[in-house]
Amino acid sequence: MAVTTLPRTLVREVRPGEDVRLQGAVQTVRALGGLVFIVLRDRSGMIQVVTEGEVDLPREAVVEVVGRSRADERAPGGVEVQATGITVLARPAVRLPFDISKPVLHASLETVLDHRALSLRHPRVAAVFRIAAALAGGFREHLTAEGCTEIHTSKLVATATEGGAGLFSVEYPGRPAYLAQSPQLYKQICVGAFERVFEVGAVYRNEPHETARHLNEYTSLDVEVGFIDLDGLLDLETGLLRAMLQAVQARAAEARKTLEITLPSFDSIPRIRLSEAKDRLAAHGLTYKPEEDLDPAGERLLGRVFAEAGHDFVFVTHYPVPARPFYALPDPAEPAVTLSFDLLFRGLEVTTGGMRIHDYTQLRENMARFHLNPDSFTGYLEAFACGMPPHGGFAIGLERLTAQLVGATNIRWATLFPRDLHRLEP
Amino acid sequence: MAVTTLPRTLVREVRPGEDVRLQGAVQTVRALGGLVFIVLRDRSGMIQVVTEGEVDLPREAVVEVVGRSRADERAPGGVEVQATGITVLARPAVRLPFDISKPVLHASLETVLDHRALSLRHPRVAAVFRIAAALAGGFREHLTAEGCTEIHTSKLVATATEGGAGLFSVEYPGRPAYLAQSPQLYKQICVGAFERVFEVGAVYRNEPHETARHLNEYTSLDVEVGFIDLDGLLDLETGLLRAMLQAVQARAAEARKTLEITLPSFDSIPRIRLSEAKDRLAAHGLTYKPEEDLDPAGERLLGRVFAEAGHDFVFVTHYPVPARPFYALPDPAEPAVTLSFDLLFRGLEVTTGGMRIHDYTQLRENMARFHLNPDSFTGYLEAFACGMPPHGGFAIGLERLTAQLVGATNIRWATLFPRDLHRLEP
Repeated sequence: MAVTTLPRTLVREVRPGEDVRLQGAVQTVRALGGLVFIVLRDRSGMIQVVTEGEVDLPREAVVEVVGRSRADERAPGGVEVQATGITVLARPAVRLPFDISKPVLHASLETVLDHRALSLRHPRVAAVFRIAAALAGGFREHLTAEGCTEIHTSKLVATATEGGAGLFSVEYPGRPAYLAQSPQLYKQICVGAFERVFEVGAVYRNEPHETARHLNEYTSLDVEVGFIDLDGLLDLETGLLRAMLQAVQARAAEARKTLEITLPSFDSIPRIRLSEAKDRLAAHGLTYKPEEDLDPAGERLLGRVFAEAGHDFVFVTHYPVPARPFYALPDPAEPAVTLSFDLLFRGLEVTTGGMRIHDYTQLRENMARFHLNPDSFTGYLEAFACGMPPHGGFAIGLERLTAQLVGATNIRWATLFPRDLHRLEP
Repeated sequence: MAVTTLPRTLVREVRPGEDVRLQGAVQTVRALGGLVFIVLRDRSGMIQVVTEGEVDLPREAVVEVVGRSRADERAPGGVEVQATGITVLARPAVRLPFDISKPVLHASLETVLDHRALSLRHPRVAAVFRIAAALAGGFREHLTAEGCTEIHTSKLVATATEGGAGLFSVEYPGRPAYLAQSPQLYKQICVGAFERVFEVGAVYRNEPHETARHLNEYTSLDVEVGFIDLDGLLDLETGLLRAMLQAVQARAAEARKTLEITLPSFDSIPRIRLSEAKDRLAAHGLTYKPEEDLDPAGERLLGRVFAEAGHDFVFVTHYPVPARPFYALPDPAEPAVTLSFDLLFRGLEVTTGGMRIHDYTQLRENMARFHLNPDSFTGYLEAFACGMPPHGGFAIGLERLTAQLVGATNIRWATLFPRDLHRLEP
């Protein structure tokens, strides 16, 4: 394959006055005054390659270029490469269904998803996933430094985590099985052993409706920590988000520039009780019953209210008992509400979390209140029967967080291969 | 909860002559000469706590201890804490089904898995998963530094990746769906956009048999890289394994000591063609047909042969075409074999990988040879139709690698919540 013994140079690392060997795809080809200008794309960026005479190179041809670099202020990036040899490594059989050489890809979301392998070649489309990768990396590295152990729990479960609705059935030998809606119960029992754990994994919701913010499968960034209280949890997520955004700045700076986004910065994140949030919304004409959760319209309005005060994020706390799952810890000072929270980011819920019941008797009583059969939760309950630390945790939806950060109007823009009522391919 | 304003100290960090606040579980309690000796366990280790008089504390009670530390050479670790106050945060309702205070947990694998929430509290059982976490962390951080982008691909697919057998069916609205056996096709098409990618995620095999090395669900550490050749792939995995083992040494040193394991070290990993491997095995009386893969007995014997020469790892390369999937690249110099490899670690296959076909026409011809319908692979094939770089990759089974490293006789020792024919809980 190699036509020279030179090591490969990434296009971003080309300096003027070097012999180079480049490898990448042809983004564009343009003939002008006897010269041919090729824009070559590799994982690090793009560079202009110049050659003489006739060149039979379609867009997306994969090539190896050897040549010499030189400064040229007319070239994008200020450096171009004069090719002395171009070897075709792969020649396309068909043309792309859209033009990926424009700054913005002019194609519908439907088309972008139908041709995912090809739309991802557009730098703006790919940039979203470079940001998601930096967020996930920042999440894990910060929590590892905080003493958390990474776990991988099973996604094939025998019982619904939080009741029956929204489950996908799996044909399992000899018995019914389901896809897990969350690693909730597993991460809790792991707290009894590792005290602090996190998991990055797929979770499943068999959603009958189709919205811009729901998917049947998404990536959940899960945390669960022992010996903590509600304020400690909010502190933990505040520091974690800061680390995740710093990871974006450090590792996906180019992607951030491509998408022209400003990263939120904050010293602290405001904390407001749900009842107060409702009072604020009522002042804007939006009213809720005491036991109700906010709906998306309320979240958006609350997001605008806090945006006006300069806040991208807001923690909403103390949700009523009926709005939370059986394991949510009621506030001892006000048992009608739980020590729980949602995090809104620019008006969209990106995290749900809270303190959990750790007392065995209280947990069993609450399961009865939620009409759950304790016999279906043996492996979970025995952790509590034998003693569990006070604990709490939360889960961040990676695609939602990414979508909000890049300003996407639909979560599918931030999902590599989205799954919903209508889409199972590619 | 707090009985003092002192910050919490982890037991590993207690130095003599300090006022401390500790939080953890009671590992053991022993009364002796009017004193009570408590071994307290938190995520960092264990420490001896001494108090006077009567103490009603069962094992696994979760407590907060305030007191003063002092050097005492009779105490494990050389430091003990004289308690001035002990607060019970959770009192167990039942006793553990086994004794976790002995250096080794005396319980069958079946019992360990049935009571996973409790067996994990044994330091040796937990240590295996601390090592797995370090391996996964080392994997991601090394590949990120090597310019790879992390991806999260869907585990719900419409078509079998590599033929029909071994799939789990999922009840999906309006159409058949399956759990993905591998992210293979997704990671390949992502190479066309990101050039270098990795993924850590669950994969599924509906295995009809039950062995010590198979599971229905495991964690696959996947890599796929463009502009590489077979030797480059083997170099990449060699450096990657070294980084992963260094991560174990750096982050799970205590777990390594607990398990009394020696980490393999190597400058390079021997590379041997499958045909040569078969010649070596034939000399030991084990013979295979030319188109055959090795069986587990052959892998074990080959592992012993290389162990005698001081090698824990060996790459076996150039598997015959029928032994590999449709996307495996035949060797242009010898088309009956593919540019593929397995990595054996102490006689067990822990990685499968190789170069892939990147030419569209060749790929379609090979699909026909494997009796696959190209219409079921539209979203995959269009990446090749539009031009794909030469590429290859591999996948490491995290549980297998961990099990071999810790010397486990069954992969289930290295799987948090294993799934097989008989086990779907906890």
